[in-house]
Formats: sequence, structure tokens, C-alpha cells
Amino acid sequence: MDNSIEQANGVLGKEITCTAAVAWGPGKPFSIQQIRVQPPQKLEVRIKILYTSVCHTDLSAWQGQNESQQVYPRIFGHEASGVVECIGEGVQDMKEGDHVLTIFNGECRICAYCKSESTNLCEKFRVDPLRSVMRNDKKTRFSTQDGKPIYHFLNTSTFRFGAVTNTANVQHGSTVAVFGLGAVGLAVIQGAKTRGASKIIGVDINADKHIKGQTMGMTHFINPRDLKMSAHEKIREMTEGGVDFSFECAGNLDVLREAFLSTHDGWGVTIVLGIHLTPRMLPLHPMELFDGRRITGSVFGGFKGKSQLALFADQCMHQDGIKLEEFITHELPFNNIDQAFQLLVLGKSIRCLLHL
Amino acid sequence: MDNSIEQANGVLGKEITCTAAVAWGPGKPFSIQQIRVQPPQKLEVRIKILYTSVCHTDLSAWQGQNESQQVYPRIFGHEASGVVECIGEGVQDMKEGDHVLTIFNGECRICAYCKSESTNLCEKFRVDPLRSVMRNDKKTRFSTQDGKPIYHFLNTSTFRFGAVTNTANVQHGSTVAVFGLGAVGLAVIQGAKTRGASKIIGVDINADKHIKGQTMGMTHFINPRDLKMSAHEKIREMTEGGVDFSFECAGNLDVLREAFLSTHDGWGVTIVLGIHLTPRMLPLHPMELFDGRRITGSVFGGFKGKSQLALFADQCMHQDGIKLEEFITHELPFNNIDQAFQLLVLGKSIRCLLHL
Repeated sequence: MDNSIEQANGVLGKEITCTAAVAWGPGKPFSIQQIRVQPPQKLEVRIKILYTSVCHTDLSAWQGQNESQQVYPRIFGHEASGVVECIGEGVQDMKEGDHVLTIFNGECRICAYCKSESTNLCEKFRVDPLRSVMRNDKKTRFSTQDGKPIYHFLNTSTFRFGAVTNTANVQHGSTVAVFGLGAVGLAVIQGAKTRGASKIIGVDINADKHIKGQTMGMTHFINPRDLKMSAHEKIREMTEGGVDFSFECAGNLDVLREAFLSTHDGWGVTIVLGIHLTPRMLPLHPMELFDGRRITGSVFGGFKGKSQLALFADQCMHQDGIKLEEFITHELPFNNIDQAFQLLVLGKSIRCLLHL
Repeated sequence: MDNSIEQANGVLGKEITCTAAVAWGPGKPFSIQQIRVQPPQKLEVRIKILYTSVCHTDLSAWQGQNESQQVYPRIFGHEASGVVECIGEGVQDMKEGDHVLTIFNGECRICAYCKSESTNLCEKFRVDPLRSVMRNDKKTRFSTQDGKPIYHFLNTSTFRFGAVTNTANVQHGSTVAVFGLGAVGLAVIQGAKTRGASKIIGVDINADKHIKGQTMGMTHFINPRDLKMSAHEKIREMTEGGVDFSFECAGNLDVLREAFLSTHDGWGVTIVLGIHLTPRMLPLHPMELFDGRRITGSVFGGFKGKSQLALFADQCMHQDGIKLEEFITHELPFNNIDQAFQLLVLGKSIRCLLHL
């Protein structure tokens, strides 16, 4: 886990020793070992992690499916909550003891991007799934006991309801298709439900997702393996020509094309949420844009990390019908991190909460 | 010319004989010959064409660059004005003697698309650049004197100011890049100027377009052949990171990628106007969507053909600063159609008006 600190043994502002789960190679079991953690540098904070969970993005990077991901030894994790243990130079909005969660899409609040209402990407602190060092000095803060550097991974968590409200702006009565019913897809279903979508069609090749999707608000389920036609043909049949919005939450380009074609021509919008670390380009023909279907990406649900996220979290906790607890399907002690990854590999878990 | 009738010799509602410019093979000189024209069928009208012009879409189809375009013998043309000579069954909003112009993107006014504010595509009468027969019965209305069918081509004209206002919604102070300064690109420049864009950068490998672009309102000109860097790098340099809107008016996929990359990440929008009859797919990587750049197509400037076009034409004629006459660079008699095509091939003309 990035900045994952099981025990803060050291003095604030000094190097400390912690327990971490270190990945030494693609898909290799984690080594639970003592590591050295440098003090936070300029605009960095060191967090004592209390809970963390495992996402497909961690899984994909751990497996090193793409060459650019193969950076080892490395500490994964980006969905975590904890307590600020120590702050670096210039940090003004956090102090020791603050309860925080990690985010991968920062907000400096002073660049042209942060001042724009059209984007939630920050010039300095935007997401970069391939970054493995700290932004300040391109170095790591982690090392083994004998000084070998251990690399970082993007650092955060939030669910993706925001893609439904901020990016797509789903309206009451809209029809929606969600491709890939992991945590992201299920969050989209919840978001679409709270927006009053009239049809919410979930698509997954894992039949076990049917029940979970229904719990979240899905109205129809399609398993492409059970169909004699393509998923997009089936969805067009079910919705008089296609859905208003489709969400690609699988990180698979063939699925992306199905999601694109499943929207209604003339006005359909596809929102890409999946991570596509593939050499392949978009499988769309330029003339297909003239059918009036649009496609767009959504990072971090379209939220600005500091100025909008806290309010959103508050809304989620107090709004009727939002079922955050349904996302946590398993809980395990941190030392069982290998088991948490396997649950995700097998499609058994949505999120497994690891206790530190 | 589709429905191109030089002389209406026949009785209304009967077959007539006309002079037409017939293309007998890819790039072959036109044969000016007598042809037979059937009476208009259900919801069709026959128009006595007074003026027509030649567009790159005609040029591309005439040259038959793509196998799917190679349909001969064929009568090209889609930008024309004239007088209704005869109406078919069910036509209620036009009558003999009406002055009309042809459009390739129809509007039935009763389908779900026509009733939607989100699209200007009609379920029945939308543009199809590969259609070569009439929609009603999949037959042609043209034939040679001895009865051999002659094929149709899409039928209309309008300029593309609408892409700027309807599709992109360019705002006062926006920055704009326009790739390809033919009639479409120049119309985009005019549209951007009327919207109060602060920078309008024209991009073309034909240096002759510099002056014409300036006349229309372009503020900067880039000839990629004169650059030591790519066009998008140059544009980013000129605009502190990229333009707010780019317009691809060249029908070239490499240009499309440059146009996409020339917008500002976070909020840039690329509007595709060029026709891309290529087997290649979009040269964009799915992860590039996460930089917040968007891409969309615009057909017929986003206008509904019947309910919105007339008002727009009126605005163009009466608004200060709109220079419609600048688009007509040449005028020739209809028999000189070969010369009109050559002017376009050589990049000498914007529009050559042919008098019938």
C-alpha cells in the first residue's frame, strides 16, 4: 500500500520502520516484511493506514499484464483510510491526527485546470497509473531494510457515482447500460438509480453478478455468453434502438465497442471508466462518429478531489437508497492480502476490506 | 447533379429528357449528354436546377478513391438551388414553382429523432454518402436514352457554420483551430469569428489558403510543411497548452489525430467534419480519453433541415460580417464542369458556381 504504515515506530519527521506487503514480481505472492519509510517531503503527508482494500487496478498492476506496469519491488494499494502521522513542508490543510482517505487525483487549487469548471484534472497532481515514484523528486520514500528502493503506486480511493452525475449527467427516465459489474460498475448502477433512470441494464459474463446488480438497483441483466446475438443488438432490442448512456467498466476494448454500439444513435453517450493498458487503439471508425454517438472518459468520477469530494461523501452517507455497505463483501486481516487478491481474481469479491 | 434538370421538356408527372453531366468511371471527364428522368415518386420532388457547385465530397466520389464509391454511370452534385418542377405523391410542403435548395440530411418531422432536441439525424432521411439509389424503391430515376440506369448521389448543400454554434457551442473568447481550409473550414472560421473567438488558427498545407483564411476571420495561419515540430505542438505553444475547440475539415485521419492533440487537455473538444472513407479506425488510444479531450462528429452543422435551416440562411444573409460571397471564387457555365473539378483538385477554388 502506498504510504502503508502498520506501525509508526519512529519520531515524526524522521525515517520510520513499518510492515508492508511487497510485490517482488508479476503475480508473485506478497512478502509481508519490514520496510523503511522516509519522512514526507514538500507537500507530502505520511498516513497511518487503518483500512485498505484491493481493486482491479491493483490486481492488473500486480499481475504486470502490460510491460509498462512491471516495476518491482513495489507496494500496491490506492483505496485506503487512516490518520495523518506526519506532514511535510508546506502542507497547510492537514495536520497530525486528521482522519483522511487517499485520493489518486489531486487538486492544487491554483492551476488553470483547478480553476476551470470543465475538468477535474489538476496540472500537477493528476492521476498517472504508470507513475512509480514521488512527483517531487522522482524518488521513492520506501526501501528495504538494507536500502533497496521499493516503488510506489497511485494513491487513493473513491467509488464512481460521480461518472453518472458529473460526466454523463443521467436524467430521470434515462436508459442506461453498464458493462462490467465490479465495484465501479455497481457504483454506476447505484448512481443511475439515484438519478431515476428508467432502465438499468447490467452486462457481465460472470453470472454471479446478477443478484448483486439487482441489490444495487439494476433492472435487467445480460450475460453475453447466454446470447445468440451480440450484447449491443440485444440492448437495442430491449430499448427501442439503444440506451441513452452506456458505461464501460471492464477495461476491455471489445467490450468498449459493444458499449459504444449499445447506445441510441443520434444522442447516445458512452462513458469510459475502465483502464485500457493495451497497445490497441480505439476500435471505432471515424465515420461512426457521424451517427451521433459520443464517447468520453471519466477520471475519478469527474470530482475535484478536495473541493467536491467531502460533500459527496457526506451525501452518500446520508442519502436513502445508497448502499455503500454492499460494496464490502469480505473483511480480512492485512496479513491475508494474498487471499484478498485471489477473491478478486476469481470474481468472488467486490471489495475486501483489509484491517491493519 | 442529383435531379439536375437543364430543360424540363416533358409534361409534369411524366418522364422528361434533360442534359446532365454523367460520370462513366473514376476520374474520367464528364459526358454532357441527354438523359431520361422519371417522374418523382412518393415524397420526392423533381427540381429544375439553376445553379450548382462542386464540393470535395463530389470530387472524392468522382475519383472513386474508395471501392464502395465506385458506382458508375453516376450523376454527382449535392449543392444546388432551383425551382420545383413537379412533385410526387404525398408532398405537402412544396409546390411547383417554389424556389428551393437541396439538402442531404432530411427531416421527416415525425420520427423519434426529429422530435428529439439532441440530434438532427432523421430516422428515414439521414445522410448516407454511399447511397446511389432512391430511398423509396432502391431504384434510380435517371437513365440513358437507351434505358441504362444512371446512379444518384447525395443531394444537398449548406455550409458548416452550424458546427461551431450547434455542435461545439464556441463561446466568446474561446480559442479555435481549423484543420483544412476548404469551404467547410472557411465556414468554420466565419462561424468562430461571429461567436467572438479570441484566436482562430487555420492549418493547411496549401499556402494559398493564408489570404483567404484571413479574409474570413482567421487570426493565425500554420502550414505544417514549414514547421520543425508537429502542428499540435505548435498550436499548444501558441495557446498555453492547446485550443478549446479544433475542427477537422480535411477528411484525413493523420490530420484528425493532430486536431485531437491540438486541444487543451481537461476540456478540449474536437469536432469531426471531414469524410473519412478509409478502412483505418480512429487513431486514438482509449487512455487518451482520460486526458479530458473529447471528440464528436457533426453532420450538416447540427441543423434540422426543414425546421432550422431557413432561419439560419436568413441570419447569414443579414448578419454583419458574414461573407457568403467570399466562398464563390469562380463561376462557369455548366458545360465547363470538368474545369470546375480541376480547380478543386488543384486547390485553386473554394466553390465554383455552375450556371445552368
